[in-house]
Amino acid sequence: MKALRVENGRIAIEDVERPAAANEALVRVLLSGICNTDLEIARGYAGFTGTLGHEFVGVIEASPEPAGIGRRVVGEINAGCGQCRLCRTGDSRHCANRTVLGIVGRDGAHAEFLQLPLANLLPIPDKIPDEHAVFVEPLAAAYGITERISLKPSQLVAVIGDGKLGLLCAQVLTLAGARVVSVGKHPEKQRIVERRGVEVISPAEAGKRVREFDVVVEASGSASGFELALSLLQPRGVLVLKSTFHGQTELDAARIVVDEISIVGSRCGRFAPAIDLLRTGAIEVDSLISEEYPLSEGVYAMERAAAPGVLKVLLRP
Amino acid sequence: MKALRVENGRIAIEDVERPAAANEALVRVLLSGICNTDLEIARGYAGFTGTLGHEFVGVIEASPEPAGIGRRVVGEINAGCGQCRLCRTGDSRHCANRTVLGIVGRDGAHAEFLQLPLANLLPIPDKIPDEHAVFVEPLAAAYGITERISLKPSQLVAVIGDGKLGLLCAQVLTLAGARVVSVGKHPEKQRIVERRGVEVISPAEAGKRVREFDVVVEASGSASGFELALSLLQPRGVLVLKSTFHGQTELDAARIVVDEISIVGSRCGRFAPAIDLLRTGAIEVDSLISEEYPLSEGVYAMERAAAPGVLKVLLRP
Repeated sequence: MKALRVENGRIAIEDVERPAAANEALVRVLLSGICNTDLEIARGYAGFTGTLGHEFVGVIEASPEPAGIGRRVVGEINAGCGQCRLCRTGDSRHCANRTVLGIVGRDGAHAEFLQLPLANLLPIPDKIPDEHAVFVEPLAAAYGITERISLKPSQLVAVIGDGKLGLLCAQVLTLAGARVVSVGKHPEKQRIVERRGVEVISPAEAGKRVREFDVVVEASGSASGFELALSLLQPRGVLVLKSTFHGQTELDAARIVVDEISIVGSRCGRFAPAIDLLRTGAIEVDSLISEEYPLSEGVYAMERAAAPGVLKVLLRP
Repeated sequence: MKALRVENGRIAIEDVERPAAANEALVRVLLSGICNTDLEIARGYAGFTGTLGHEFVGVIEASPEPAGIGRRVVGEINAGCGQCRLCRTGDSRHCANRTVLGIVGRDGAHAEFLQLPLANLLPIPDKIPDEHAVFVEPLAAAYGITERISLKPSQLVAVIGDGKLGLLCAQVLTLAGARVVSVGKHPEKQRIVERRGVEVISPAEAGKRVREFDVVVEASGSASGFELALSLLQPRGVLVLKSTFHGQTELDAARIVVDEISIVGSRCGRFAPAIDLLRTGAIEVDSLISEEYPLSEGVYAMERAAAPGVLKVLLRP
């Protein structure tokens, strides 16, 4: 089968064996989405070698439990060891020995087939088209913020970054009742959330609103975003770190203590609420799709996904 | 009156006017305590000029409301503007225009007299001696942790630093039901909390317990303590920043996101619970007192407070 593979910071479409572990489900991929994390991994982050991709919708082709075969599914990307204290208490997302689809020790979704433990797969209601279902994973990650902090209605929230993740976060937090301000450099992208009641401003305009926000979500993936985020917070404000930018960041510890700031890391989220949000149409994802390519053009698609102004790029095997 | 003053990083005992604002209470200081923050301010931090000191117990000598005169009191050190949104919602501790006793724009407690708004003063029950009452402010700061994070009984908590603040934090968190481990370099200081059921280890021993703790409190005031603190946390762990060390600290943002760590700044706390803890004898403070000097020897007392192995140094006007 064809797969978009990375090795030593180089990507290529290759012909590889179809996955065949008898204790896991085999999923035929219908559509996969390119995430910024894929772009970072392609640059060598995390030292991953294998098939890229962790956002997908597919159909179960083979399974240890035949009842599920033929079902359309999405999949939780972390697979825990099942033995450690975290796994035993239901938190395999943080298992130290976990594999992660297309990220750590497990081939990913930019391929004709993938495999995952059956327990990781969730059925997708018929009324959600593939083009929406492929957003379940990033939407779950955005929704995960509401599970990490206690957000009160009418709180003022800034979301730094107008990429795919930032625009999903802005929508989710608006639904949660917050007054959301999107801080970004691309008015044409921000328009997507402006239509949903989000105020949109530039980083320069944000610089005039220091210490005004109850919550700031850093979804820009840059160190300068981190610095801006911290400056926007009022005392006792909460900074949610959503994007995994790399390298060390300078932190003014005295500011954190004196103003009693909280910094909260947020990575993945549960899939069930994300599926609900897509089923009810509460979240706009259509306009987040920029382009779609056949899997065979995966290398070019990755280039496109990294281009300025481009939002979600989909791959169809 | 005599006062221990700082100007341009130099300290001296000076003769100054007694405070005389008619709209505030005048307090005759019975005893004041030297805090590490005093030592940092004396080195020039915060650019403060004036009388040092913010830990005290005293007697009201004059007041806009005569009923309180003669009462023994301690005092909340932040005095808000009374006008801003934070002050109006009861959070004058974070008012941007606040003064802070002996720290920001207001002469402090290492003096024969100080003044504070009457509303800042809390009466001290007779059964709490002066030598305990002077610990209300730092104990409130330690207790403040329990108001910033939700601590569950039997959670494993490390407190980095075996100075005055670290030892108070370790005791408070033990009372809150946590299993507390004190990480410090001074076994003779740690013995104070070991007697109260706290496990005591060295930083080297802590290095063998990475990713084991639910909560880590950084109370060492050093950047290396911050790094150690982060390494000890398990996924979804909480790092409480308690000490205001200066300069920038390197932060590994990816670790925060991937392991979904929270970093929570904690500065002051409410006085009422601290007074309760001292009244019931739940917190050991006697053995935290290293030395006492007359105010006239304040400069030497500051040197002593900075010496290795010395805990609380008190000044008596």
